[in-house]
This record gives sequence, structure tokens and C-alpha cells, in this order.
Amino acid sequence: MAEPIDFYFDFSSPYGYFMAEKIDVLAAAHGRSVRWRPFLLGAVYKVTGEVPLPSKPLKGDYSKRDFERSARFLGLRCRMPEAFPIGTQVAARAFYWLDERDPVAARAFALAAYRAYFGEGRDISQEAAVLDLAAAHGADRAGLAEALAGEAIRNRLKDECAQAIARGVFGSPFVLVDGEPFWGVDRIPQIERWLQTGGF
Amino acid sequence: MAEPIDFYFDFSSPYGYFMAEKIDVLAAAHGRSVRWRPFLLGAVYKVTGEVPLPSKPLKGDYSKRDFERSARFLGLRCRMPEAFPIGTQVAARAFYWLDERDPVAARAFALAAYRAYFGEGRDISQEAAVLDLAAAHGADRAGLAEALAGEAIRNRLKDECAQAIARGVFGSPFVLVDGEPFWGVDRIPQIERWLQTGGF
Repeated sequence: MAEPIDFYFDFSSPYGYFMAEKIDVLAAAHGRSVRWRPFLLGAVYKVTGEVPLPSKPLKGDYSKRDFERSARFLGLRCRMPEAFPIGTQVAARAFYWLDERDPVAARAFALAAYRAYFGEGRDISQEAAVLDLAAAHGADRAGLAEALAGEAIRNRLKDECAQAIARGVFGSPFVLVDGEPFWGVDRIPQIERWLQTGGF
Repeated sequence: MAEPIDFYFDFSSPYGYFMAEKIDVLAAAHGRSVRWRPFLLGAVYKVTGEVPLPSKPLKGDYSKRDFERSARFLGLRCRMPEAFPIGTQVAARAFYWLDERDPVAARAFALAAYRAYFGEGRDISQEAAVLDLAAAHGADRAGLAEALAGEAIRNRLKDECAQAIARGVFGSPFVLVDGEPFWGVDRIPQIERWLQTGGF
């Protein structure tokens, strides 16, 4: 059986959100599964010297327009949150804690967190919001709160970010299909052809 | 009759090359014409603080791979030139000189310059190469050489770069359809739908 496709994303990335809505269906159509891997763009940007899109001259204004147009193009709901970008370490740590216990629930939590942030404007940088979302997907709220206060889950996320950087991940979404890297939701047509043909 | 679509590009941009191979056919399918507008990414980067893709950590390595894969995906020939990126002011000035005399020849020259650079690895930063390509498309070689030594054509390109920046152009290719901005060759599907529907 083929290795899962790796899907790297930051919870504050609109293009990551769009890919989260598409990647499982796309992979399943070709008999493939997906390993979801939240990471922190901030950790990557420390290495690359990159800055968040909204603070870039010219490109920042364009990107806000492109986020919303791309959502419409893809048939997805997206209303840019007032607070953007936000810190996503709590959501990412909660994901990995859930993923160790119930990978299906972890993925459902991730998608719900994205929809809460980009669909309803909920500030998922807050621990309370993350705990609510995780509990709604079957997490033990008190157990997760305790884990979030500890060192282990921080180190897990640090390791994941280091691994992402080691694999060349520099943006969100970033998809690896049998080692081939694809950056951006606009690479879906190329991913699709790659899965169809085994590479081109 | 609808206004022409504006197509901004830098002669050293592979994604600009890919768009140059596609945009006229795409526009014509919807009864639209295209105004080709070479500019200098270097002039834009002075304003935005951006740096060329190949010098970016992680993203640079990815982009070389993505250039070639995107070419294959689009059915285009692309062999990354040894000298990359290059200065493109001579090619851009030659384009505008030709465009004032024969817009059809100017466009044929632009496409030929892109193909020479990305298909055959010819260094189109050199004036001799530019003169050869322009002459092959009917330009008066001596007249163009004289113009390239003068002030008028330099000022024309400066004005074009300033206008591009004023219109929000920050990368190559950049396409404006009735005021709506699209950055990147991967926005072709969105441009297509925009032309079909009049906006979405």
C-alpha cells in the first residue's frame, strides 16, 4: 500500500483551510490516505526570513482579495477574520494530543477549527475556543487542558516544525506526494495529475 | 468593445513565460484582446523589499523544481537557463520601441525572446541577442540600437514600471481583467471563469 500523502498546514492560513476542505476527497479518489500535519508558519519564517502576507506591500492588499475570490472559486465559505494572522500553537498542540488518541477525531477537530476561524470569525488562538472545539469532537476537556499546560505537547509541536523545515516546508498548505512537494492550494490540478499518472 | 486585458511580465520570469504562451488564446476565446506590458521585477522589488525567488531559503530550491514541473504540466518547453535571473531592461525597452511601430511584431518578439531564454538558454540580457531577435521580427536593427542608446526609451520603461506599481503589480505574471488583479500563471482557471461569467 502506498504511503499516506503528507498535508502540512498552519491553522491561520486561508489557503491551508481551502486545502483542508479538498485534500481528503482528492486523495481518496486515487486510493490514498492523508496524514494531517499542522505546523507553525512563524517557526518556518524564523528560518526563511519571510513575513506574513498581510504585512507585505502591494502583495498584502492583493492577498486579501485573492483569499476571498479563491474561496468563491472553490465553492467554500470564507470571511476574513478581524484578527489575522493569529498564533496557532494551541490549536496545533491540541491536534497532536488528539491525534495520538483518535486520528479521525483529530482531523474532524482540525476542519472544525478552520471553519470556526474562517467561516465564523471565532478566535481560535484562545485556549478556551480550542478546548470547546476539541470537546465537541469527543476530547476529554480536562485532560487536554492539562496536557496543554505541560512540556510534552510543546516539544511534540517543536519536533513537528523542525521536521517540516527539514523536509523543505516553507509555506501553507504544503503537500508531499511520495516525496514530491507541492506548495499552495493552486497546485491541486498538479497533485491530481501526479496521483493519476504516478508523476509527470 | 471591452478594454484589452493587461498582461504584465518580466522577461526573466518563468511563470511570465508560461503565461505569455497562454494568455492570447485564452483571451481570444472570450473575444478579448491583450495588452502586453513588460516591466522590471527589480524596480518593483525596490518598493516592496522582495528578493528574487532563487535566493530565498527553502522556497528557492522548491521554485526551481516547480518551474520545470509546471512547464511539463502546461505542455511547454522549459530548461532553466544557467544565468538566472538576468537583467531584462534591454529586452523590455526593445519591446516598447517595437510596440510603438508594430504591436504585432512586438508581441512576436516578446514570445521569441522568452522561448530563446527559457527554451534554448540564450542570454537575452545581452543587447546583441535582443537586436538579433528584434531584427528577426522585422525591426530596423540600426534604428533600434540607436534608440537603446538614448534617453527616451529608458524613460518609457521607467514610466511603465511606475504605472505597474501604481496599479498594484508586485509579481510576474500579473493580469488585470477589467480592474480585477490576478497574480501567477496558476490563476489561469480563475481568469477563465472571470471571462466566462463577468466576475464571480
